[in-house]
Amino acid sequence: MIKVSVLYPNTPGARFDHEYYRNKHMPMVKSKMGESCKYYTVDKGIAGGMPGTPPTYVGMCHLFCDSVDDFQAGFGPHASEILADIKNYTDLTPVIQISEVVVG
Amino acid sequence: MIKVSVLYPNTPGARFDHEYYRNKHMPMVKSKMGESCKYYTVDKGIAGGMPGTPPTYVGMCHLFCDSVDDFQAGFGPHASEILADIKNYTDLTPVIQISEVVVG
Repeated sequence: MIKVSVLYPNTPGARFDHEYYRNKHMPMVKSKMGESCKYYTVDKGIAGGMPGTPPTYVGMCHLFCDSVDDFQAGFGPHASEILADIKNYTDLTPVIQISEVVVG
Repeated sequence: MIKVSVLYPNTPGARFDHEYYRNKHMPMVKSKMGESCKYYTVDKGIAGGMPGTPPTYVGMCHLFCDSVDDFQAGFGPHASEILADIKNYTDLTPVIQISEVVVG
């Protein structure tokens, strides 16, 4: 199993609509990807590691797929439509990472 | 539900022992925290978002707890012992973030 993590840096003054992200964007992504995305999780940043510090990321999602090939097969055909929706919830550029799920 | 994410930056030349992290460190953390940590996940960075790019983080873990108070109650009393074990698998300083689990 692999996970594709999309991490939105917590940049002062930036826009991030958590409601839209949870209720519209992420369900749309799952709908487009179908079974190539087994499931996904969504996080909202609360705080950093030290008391009183801000979170590094304002929001994150993690898409879980059987393999990188499965992710690409599911995401690729819908990439332009999915990416075009980003402006509806944020003006941030995310950090994207692919990881092996070691303990899931 | 909240998650505490511990993200180890993928720094060239740094040391990170994935085997020790998975087999020794994380089970020790869970054992010390008991039921205050509901479960945890571990990731190993594979790649960045663009083909041929490295992952931003070489390894990550996520500790899932009912609340920040639960995390602090479970982690605090064992913090020095847990932190003292870090040198056994890495010389990196992690990024730590607390997030609300919006979709889990």
